[in-house]
Amino acid sequence: MTDAGAAKPTPVAPLPPSSTIGIFGGGQLGRMLAMAAAELGLQTHIFSDTTGPACDVACSNTIAPYGDLDAVRAFAADVDVATFEFENVPLSTGSAAAETTLVLPGVKALEIAQDRLLEKTFISGLGIPVAPFSAVDDNAGLEACAGKTGLPAILKTRRLGYDGKGQTPVSTLEDLKKSFNDGDGTPCVLEARIDFVKEISVLVVRGRDGAIAFYDLPENTHKSGILDTSTVPADITEAVAVEARTVARQIAEALDYVGLLAIELFVLASQDAPQVMVNEIAPRVHNSGHWTSDACQVSQFENHIRAIAGWPLGATDRHSDARMTNLIGADANAWPARAAQPKVSLHLYGKRSVRPGRKMGHITEIWPISTPKPS
Amino acid sequence: MTDAGAAKPTPVAPLPPSSTIGIFGGGQLGRMLAMAAAELGLQTHIFSDTTGPACDVACSNTIAPYGDLDAVRAFAADVDVATFEFENVPLSTGSAAAETTLVLPGVKALEIAQDRLLEKTFISGLGIPVAPFSAVDDNAGLEACAGKTGLPAILKTRRLGYDGKGQTPVSTLEDLKKSFNDGDGTPCVLEARIDFVKEISVLVVRGRDGAIAFYDLPENTHKSGILDTSTVPADITEAVAVEARTVARQIAEALDYVGLLAIELFVLASQDAPQVMVNEIAPRVHNSGHWTSDACQVSQFENHIRAIAGWPLGATDRHSDARMTNLIGADANAWPARAAQPKVSLHLYGKRSVRPGRKMGHITEIWPISTPKPS
Repeated sequence: MTDAGAAKPTPVAPLPPSSTIGIFGGGQLGRMLAMAAAELGLQTHIFSDTTGPACDVACSNTIAPYGDLDAVRAFAADVDVATFEFENVPLSTGSAAAETTLVLPGVKALEIAQDRLLEKTFISGLGIPVAPFSAVDDNAGLEACAGKTGLPAILKTRRLGYDGKGQTPVSTLEDLKKSFNDGDGTPCVLEARIDFVKEISVLVVRGRDGAIAFYDLPENTHKSGILDTSTVPADITEAVAVEARTVARQIAEALDYVGLLAIELFVLASQDAPQVMVNEIAPRVHNSGHWTSDACQVSQFENHIRAIAGWPLGATDRHSDARMTNLIGADANAWPARAAQPKVSLHLYGKRSVRPGRKMGHITEIWPISTPKPS
Repeated sequence: MTDAGAAKPTPVAPLPPSSTIGIFGGGQLGRMLAMAAAELGLQTHIFSDTTGPACDVACSNTIAPYGDLDAVRAFAADVDVATFEFENVPLSTGSAAAETTLVLPGVKALEIAQDRLLEKTFISGLGIPVAPFSAVDDNAGLEACAGKTGLPAILKTRRLGYDGKGQTPVSTLEDLKKSFNDGDGTPCVLEARIDFVKEISVLVVRGRDGAIAFYDLPENTHKSGILDTSTVPADITEAVAVEARTVARQIAEALDYVGLLAIELFVLASQDAPQVMVNEIAPRVHNSGHWTSDACQVSQFENHIRAIAGWPLGATDRHSDARMTNLIGADANAWPARAAQPKVSLHLYGKRSVRPGRKMGHITEIWPISTPKPS
């Protein structure tokens, strides 16, 4: 693993208002980060390979391929700190930016999150439970892989997977062979299927001074591999919550992470420890934390910006219970009905066209806070 | 009064996402309006005579004098509806824009709010209490004016007053003569001093379909003529609240107003009706409504955008009690301490330099909602 991101010493003084936050990525997460930065009086500069929703709300934009390292260096020279809204920013891009500016959460977090094999190896290396997994590199090794994880299992590409993309369930060795070869031998990881009760996520934020704060854990549901709803509080015991936060703290500290880190967890059926297992990590703000914009004084977006700017972390308390529901593809066409619904905050991302599977917006319902569920 | 704004029929269909909201004025109110529009997937175009805080978060900007009507017309041609963040946009500017686009709340509201004499005449013409007032046009009439309002009183310029600017307390006829002539005979209004108990404001929003909604009434305090704090709920009886809303509805309907209208009221000492008196109106989002961003699902900014875009109004309910405190001038230098304060939402406007009396940002504290005060 490179550690170009760690090569520069971390300055202690917080960036003053009117400093510039650089953001790699022009999507809705970049947009929400840019608006959070603006609320704190900070300026933003987006670097993206195509004009996207973030560009509409940023102070300046660089539209160039991520591989154009001259453009990356010019961008880095203009900003006071750089971050990213998606984990597939090429490492060479992150490293080029890190020559002249601070890149947070850092190139190491990028590198691990870009590759399922590195990620699972890293997390299990910390003694944290993950699904049994095996690297799938060639046809010769397929049978041994299946033996290690058991079947049925899920074949996942090592790189560039998100929202269920690059994932194929396989039931038999035949399936596995076919799926691997359908992918032209792209390096994969075979993961055991986990019999989980529910999915939750941890939204943890860590400051440049090592301070750490957790949002309450959302419980997540998916449709067609894409997040559908996140609800807080999750219907889990305090023991599960404690275990989830412990795991998240371990990962954040092992990465010397700065910013908002999202960790997707399976809650296991067994009441014995361990009760949670890490599904995957996202070194960025996360869809399962969108409710924080409507149910907390300081959102995940603002806390990410505070962390990378060296500001004190903001409170992660909720003032309300909440449920976020994504508007995917044609769901967004129902915006007039959503806008008319009481107790609903509507968020649309300004994407110019609706496409199936495309995240177009979300709604958040809030209601008065409920009593915590006893352990 | 011109009614160029009313000359175009009001379309019924709501503007779809990605439509463009034009905003005259590049200050912090324009900035907050632009961010609220972005949350709904709408684009923004700012027209301002100088680059200001709103320009950092807008999709496009026109920087030109308000008197450059060619630039105004080009701007109007690019937007789907135009609005303003301050009431001193020249009427000729508003009218030029209204040739090609809908201008809301409309040129009539601008005209009235720009001139204290027109405003007081209009409001008292609706049978709504205002402080006794008298037009001051020349030295010959001064004694009669003072006779009409009584002394001590306040001499206010008819035009271009805000945040206490253009206001001089006068105790004697000598004072009055001196102040009027110090102002080189600028047309003024002499207003009686009102013995009020407290100041509150109404934030009322009216849709293009005539639907109307009220935020809970904030109680306001001032320092050196500038708003200092707004607290909800105000410590007033329900009878006062009802009277305040009735007055606000009357004014909004008389103006056929569309958007967010703020009305500053004095609560009078007497328990007999009337218990409120209108101080002034602002045909725009208002500083005393900033708490709505942190204590409501739909802020005053979003509701203004919803109204002018022909969308259904959003809920005006509070999820929390709140107190907003302005950060004026050097107050903003304490941002690190404010950022570290728990239970505080910090908002900075991205202004590049601190000047005395300049609105640099605000904070909002929130806490769980209290029981309503009985009538």
